Amino acid sequence: VSVIDQFLDQLLQILGPAGCVTDPALLDSYITDWRGIYHGQAMCVLRPSRTEELAAVMAVCAKAGIAVVPQGGNTSLTGAATPDGSGHQVIVSLNRLKRIRAVDIIDMTVTVEAGLSIAELQSAAIAAGALFPLSFAAEGSATVGGAIATNAGGTAAVRYGSARDLLLGLEVVLPDGAIWNGLRRLHKDNAGYALRHLFAGSEGTLGVITAAVLRLFPAVHAREVAFCSLGSEQDVLALWRRLREREGGSVRAVEYMSGDSIAIVLRHGGLRLPVGVADHYMLIELNASQPDAPLRERLESVLAEALEAGEVIDAAVAQNGQQRDDFWRLRESQTEAQKQAGGNLKHDISVPVSNLAELLRRCRAELKAWFDGVRIAPFGHVGDGNIHMNIIQPDGMSDSDFLACADDIGAVIYDVVESLGGSFSAEHGIGRSKLALFEQRRPAAELDLMRRIKAAIDPGAIMNPGKVLRMPPT
Amino acid sequence: VSVIDQFLDQLLQILGPAGCVTDPALLDSYITDWRGIYHGQAMCVLRPSRTEELAAVMAVCAKAGIAVVPQGGNTSLTGAATPDGSGHQVIVSLNRLKRIRAVDIIDMTVTVEAGLSIAELQSAAIAAGALFPLSFAAEGSATVGGAIATNAGGTAAVRYGSARDLLLGLEVVLPDGAIWNGLRRLHKDNAGYALRHLFAGSEGTLGVITAAVLRLFPAVHAREVAFCSLGSEQDVLALWRRLREREGGSVRAVEYMSGDSIAIVLRHGGLRLPVGVADHYMLIELNASQPDAPLRERLESVLAEALEAGEVIDAAVAQNGQQRDDFWRLRESQTEAQKQAGGNLKHDISVPVSNLAELLRRCRAELKAWFDGVRIAPFGHVGDGNIHMNIIQPDGMSDSDFLACADDIGAVIYDVVESLGGSFSAEHGIGRSKLALFEQRRPAAELDLMRRIKAAIDPGAIMNPGKVLRMPPT
Repeated sequence: VSVIDQFLDQLLQILGPAGCVTDPALLDSYITDWRGIYHGQAMCVLRPSRTEELAAVMAVCAKAGIAVVPQGGNTSLTGAATPDGSGHQVIVSLNRLKRIRAVDIIDMTVTVEAGLSIAELQSAAIAAGALFPLSFAAEGSATVGGAIATNAGGTAAVRYGSARDLLLGLEVVLPDGAIWNGLRRLHKDNAGYALRHLFAGSEGTLGVITAAVLRLFPAVHAREVAFCSLGSEQDVLALWRRLREREGGSVRAVEYMSGDSIAIVLRHGGLRLPVGVADHYMLIELNASQPDAPLRERLESVLAEALEAGEVIDAAVAQNGQQRDDFWRLRESQTEAQKQAGGNLKHDISVPVSNLAELLRRCRAELKAWFDGVRIAPFGHVGDGNIHMNIIQPDGMSDSDFLACADDIGAVIYDVVESLGGSFSAEHGIGRSKLALFEQRRPAAELDLMRRIKAAIDPGAIMNPGKVLRMPPT
Repeated sequence: VSVIDQFLDQLLQILGPAGCVTDPALLDSYITDWRGIYHGQAMCVLRPSRTEELAAVMAVCAKAGIAVVPQGGNTSLTGAATPDGSGHQVIVSLNRLKRIRAVDIIDMTVTVEAGLSIAELQSAAIAAGALFPLSFAAEGSATVGGAIATNAGGTAAVRYGSARDLLLGLEVVLPDGAIWNGLRRLHKDNAGYALRHLFAGSEGTLGVITAAVLRLFPAVHAREVAFCSLGSEQDVLALWRRLREREGGSVRAVEYMSGDSIAIVLRHGGLRLPVGVADHYMLIELNASQPDAPLRERLESVLAEALEAGEVIDAAVAQNGQQRDDFWRLRESQTEAQKQAGGNLKHDISVPVSNLAELLRRCRAELKAWFDGVRIAPFGHVGDGNIHMNIIQPDGMSDSDFLACADDIGAVIYDVVESLGGSFSAEHGIGRSKLALFEQRRPAAELDLMRRIKAAIDPGAIMNPGKVLRMPPT
């Protein structure tokens, strides 16, 4: 028997047949990401059902020097969770490690295993009379472990923060197979370095997150949603400032959509615009835990002021739950509608909020000057300064011609972002697709620090190699 | 000339006489902490006025292998900022590096150098029409850099978070003299490992923080404060739950004081209790950015419900600014009054909030059983599960007899804390005084990870040695 067969046999003995998948037909959904963009190969998929099982197989992989690719819902937009094409890597799927270990409604924390989906955790929180606020497009498939490992953001981050802001404790299987149990349910704990913040956002390159303690919030008993049309990028900022000043603590979402991005959604069919056609739109949601909070009148009052000040052209406040869902669908259908509209180059960028209007204006002007006919369909999270600057294939341009422009279009956008003090990766991480950008756009001292940390925690370089950081050969 | 003279001469040439203090008379305030507990020696105090100057002297220290102790306001309660007694260490004081580089009222961020005091930053924020919410006893002397390096908490953390939660960007001089410029004013930035969170809380053992980007919040235009007496530990938790459910977003502080701790403050003189004598007290502050927010009636309504439910014995709502300040003084005088009352053993502990009542009950019962006559004077931050379990010297016991009990008293308290899933260091850090506790109370895998990180970033072990982690000899 070969060394590979011996290696696989060791894994099989620890995990059993249900926990060690080698049948090529069953590997398919693991080796390609959910958008079908990143394809890889894997020797096998390991599916531990307990942390101790994972620790045992990690020790085997470490000894064999075999690389491990941790995978949650496989929804990374940067290819962080799919293996390379060598066939020499092993996938660790967390999809059997999905128990809720504890819910503490006094402490307002949940202790949960990595494989539970975000949507399942949201439901569990509601069942306990609380709110788990993380919310983003892939929440039905994306997992707790993946959301922490990529520091997922989404639409409610403006109020509740991104994944790391909800994170109190962590359990991690380290590259050598040791278990770090840092599952403390503590709101204050200043004892040494903040290890949980190091694993959060590390995209599986330092260890495998197996469980976490996450914060819960009081359940939401009142929601109001408005949809507005606006005349300029500057008005988008002005409305956000007014909202924050007046309703700071209750703004759950403040989302931007450009005229083009709404036009694409409307062409996709089935949805109706509650305001007149304009160049810019915003969706606003206020929420509160008190059922009797006068959110409707407060929202109407802010919008009346904004109309008076000329910051808003038109505004509609949802009159019932159906309208509220309809308004949200205009925002939530963006990704799917753009996919239907043609090739789609995504740029997940952020700037200081004060530079947001300038970002939108300059990207539009510079792209229009360089690439005739290009459709610029940005949308995103105003309060976080985070825009998804999506560029849609022009009608009549071939796929290959469009893809040939990708790097040039990216360079235009990322240069604007950099000149405005922004980030080329706001909430989607580095994965494999932004490795080169990362090296170009960040100072050498920063990359050097990260490489030192990577080498210190994963000296064998077996954790998700080729993601986040390119390491020098050991 | 000796190698020491050569070394000092190099530093003097870079910093000039104002930046390189060797006069023993001028060293005094640097080599002893503000409580006068930790005494050390230093070759000199370096006072750079620009980041580049610090980078240059760090490179000199690195080459010479001389250890560096970063120091802000020298207010650490665990001796993190004072040098050892060898006389072979150099202090880097940030007290000339205190410019506000930028305030952005749209983005709601401030870019500030490390040496500015927290109180000065609070004032600057108010002048700009905003709020910098970090607030704790030492804020008049404690600095931005120190607060970040120790992840300072305080009374407003329940609403706004601790220092790390306010931190968006960081500038650090690394142990080899390189500058890491991570001063990004971004609310979302997922590009690699969260280096800012590694330096935050590292207590100067990984580099010297020279500047930071911190979050601002809408200015506070309405405040209401109440002072309550309660009959049991369980009622303390019940009142907090009720407050959070009803007024979650506006609770700025929810502070606990035991009957004994209030008795000590009252004996200290000058203050009056606005409620009857009881075993437990709480101070509550609601705030809002809207001047017309009906906080008074909302606070009164919650307290009326709590009275009805029997959770509160008596409650007074401050009728004016003077009363508000008087109520707060009952809380803020705790430390000073306890100092006057005799020897004082501090234990800065936290537990899951749901275990808070049990913590208070068990510490009291077990300490009373073991140490006759001991005065237990806990106070702290209910919403964070963070209690300062201070033990006061019994009347008539000698200083030496009391200090001889310190380790045994600590062991009782920390055992209770550990059995309740808590932390032996909630917000004061490790410094030098909790080194041994840290090694006893945390898993080996956790300490090992931290030591690897320390060795990777500070291979020469020159950054604040003997603090946070004991390293094996290199």
